[in-house]
Amino acid sequence: ARSIDLAVIPGDGIGPEVVAEGLKVLTAVLPSEVKLETSTYDLGASRWHRTGETLPEAELAGLKEHDAILLGAIGDPSVPSGVLERGLLLKLRFAFDHYVNLRPSRLFPNTDSPLAGRPEIDFVVVREGTEGPYVGNGGSMRTGTPAEVATEVSLNTAFGVERVVRDAFERAAARPARKLTLVHKNNVLVHAGHLWKNTVDRIAEEYPQVSVDYLHVDAATIFFVTQPQRFDVIVTDNLFGDILTDLAAAITGGIGLAASGNINPTGAFPSMFEPVHGSAPDIAGTGKADPTATVLSVALLLRHLGYQAEAARIEDAVTADLAERDAAAPRTTAAIGDALAARVAG
Amino acid sequence: ARSIDLAVIPGDGIGPEVVAEGLKVLTAVLPSEVKLETSTYDLGASRWHRTGETLPEAELAGLKEHDAILLGAIGDPSVPSGVLERGLLLKLRFAFDHYVNLRPSRLFPNTDSPLAGRPEIDFVVVREGTEGPYVGNGGSMRTGTPAEVATEVSLNTAFGVERVVRDAFERAAARPARKLTLVHKNNVLVHAGHLWKNTVDRIAEEYPQVSVDYLHVDAATIFFVTQPQRFDVIVTDNLFGDILTDLAAAITGGIGLAASGNINPTGAFPSMFEPVHGSAPDIAGTGKADPTATVLSVALLLRHLGYQAEAARIEDAVTADLAERDAAAPRTTAAIGDALAARVAG
Ligand SMILES: CC(C)[C@H](C(=O)O)[C@@H](O)C(=O)O
Ligand SMILES: CC(C)[C@H](C(=O)O)[C@@H](O)C(=O)O
Repeated sequence: ARSIDLAVIPGDGIGPEVVAEGLKVLTAVLPSEVKLETSTYDLGASRWHRTGETLPEAELAGLKEHDAILLGAIGDPSVPSGVLERGLLLKLRFAFDHYVNLRPSRLFPNTDSPLAGRPEIDFVVVREGTEGPYVGNGGSMRTGTPAEVATEVSLNTAFGVERVVRDAFERAAARPARKLTLVHKNNVLVHAGHLWKNTVDRIAEEYPQVSVDYLHVDAATIFFVTQPQRFDVIVTDNLFGDILTDLAAAITGGIGLAASGNINPTGAFPSMFEPVHGSAPDIAGTGKADPTATVLSVALLLRHLGYQAEAARIEDAVTADLAERDAAAPRTTAAIGDALAARVAG
Repeated sequence: ARSIDLAVIPGDGIGPEVVAEGLKVLTAVLPSEVKLETSTYDLGASRWHRTGETLPEAELAGLKEHDAILLGAIGDPSVPSGVLERGLLLKLRFAFDHYVNLRPSRLFPNTDSPLAGRPEIDFVVVREGTEGPYVGNGGSMRTGTPAEVATEVSLNTAFGVERVVRDAFERAAARPARKLTLVHKNNVLVHAGHLWKNTVDRIAEEYPQVSVDYLHVDAATIFFVTQPQRFDVIVTDNLFGDILTDLAAAITGGIGLAASGNINPTGAFPSMFEPVHGSAPDIAGTGKADPTATVLSVALLLRHLGYQAEAARIEDAVTADLAERDAAAPRTTAAIGDALAARVAG
């Protein structure tokens, strides 16, 4: 009998609420012969306040043993900026070598887009997850004085760029449009930019069926709002990917729907799935959070673990649920989860 | 008698065409007693192809002697990416210490926005222009091999951050909404981010009348498309400013209208004014380029040199011209320039 041994990090704010619905749908969609085991990890703001810990070694070692991780949201205004991001979320991405940060963007039917004319949007951003300006290689001297100098170093390796570019080509080759767009800023960040551009150009020769395009990151934001139909698969660095995927979420109806996977394609470490949105402490506990992004993250998780049919059932359920949504009659977090669970079970 | 001694760099692609219209409007708006002298500098792609030079010392010394610089556009696909950007455009910004890269964003009447509902948009981005990831402090080793490592260093100084933050506060204090938003990514780029955040918090005490806000750059892109009304003055680093101002141009009807000033507020060096758009080689020579961004850059130039009334006349002329535009009957570059020149002269 198959089984899924899942680590769950509910986290802060609306995290626990949306994760509860994600698990509800996951339980409903899995065939009864698949055994689902979950272990909850108490990590995030309240743990930090209580113990001063962000991600102790024991927990890191524990997490490593699971098949996958489902994460709700991390962060609270009461914690200094950077502490939980660097000490927990990014630490997990780096420790588990999540070099593919996968963020699909789709404008679902009956969903509001801030873009006039509701263009068709169906692309996926493959964001590098372990390098670039996220490596934590910065510092400051004479800190707090008028002579302060602060640096941030973007580190990029042929090893790191090639593996994510290959992953993006594979994804592009498997999609109907078979188009890959590299986004960087190689006219200014010439060294990192040339490494990315040369890598894409070289691997492109192995994928003659994939058409390849390059855009500067600034120009890419223009096309996101004027011509998002032009995108199929986008591959980009960690920071550009961070920026572009929030914009992508916004043009497809908001971060309430944006799912993501922090993937280690080799399987050496568990991959981690999380909604793109944050912990939204302002609406925590009100039942206003939309669990759909988490539910769609569960679909990515299932696909990663080889449950293609179940993943598709969830995505179809979301599409059907959104099609019937009535903006004038908002439902609670749990009601949306119930509706989705009923659909996938049906 | 007053006079303006202007250096003109028409540049590449549509640069010469739009600059010609900018000068036409400038000539028309200036009172007859103001003597306008222009010197044209042949810099850009064709110069580079001819002589291999991007910005020779003699030209740099010559440019320094003028009151201001008007630049059209730099860049051509025939030149390797980065050569003209780093060797000419950024070299000018750095050599002339253009630490305030000023980019106003306004949704003009009768102008298409890709945003549904045409929200009100009227903000200005104060982009730092001489530091951050633009300093050219990167490199690569084992280049072109599977062991390549490429770096890009973002350099940030208290000196550089404070002066641009002060400029932004001054601008915010002079505007009706009196609101300043710092955009950075201080939860990841903690060292540079803390320098920026601490500087803004400290200077804010001197401007109790200005309300201050902070947004991560990824979240800022969301608000650009969902709630651009919330912005008044934005202050941000060189790279985030680059990305955000292209997005700002897109949501306000396209880069055909986006003006910018590369300003040295001390007057130690000439400031440089240029449209945000590029050289658009695909439409060069067709008369399709919209010179409005250049004309609005001329207005910024005039305001910088103290010609407030003339600057306002140009902006009013643009507003009136746009209000009468008929998308079904596009005019040529020269026709738009003629119309604007006639309005400001009238
Ligand atoms: C919270 C933050 C560290 C994170 C990032 O920058 O990657 C978030 O914005 C995201 O996109 O997952
Ligand atoms: C051409 C390029 C170097 C430049 C920049 O990145 O600053 C441009 O995009 C701009 O915004 O003026």
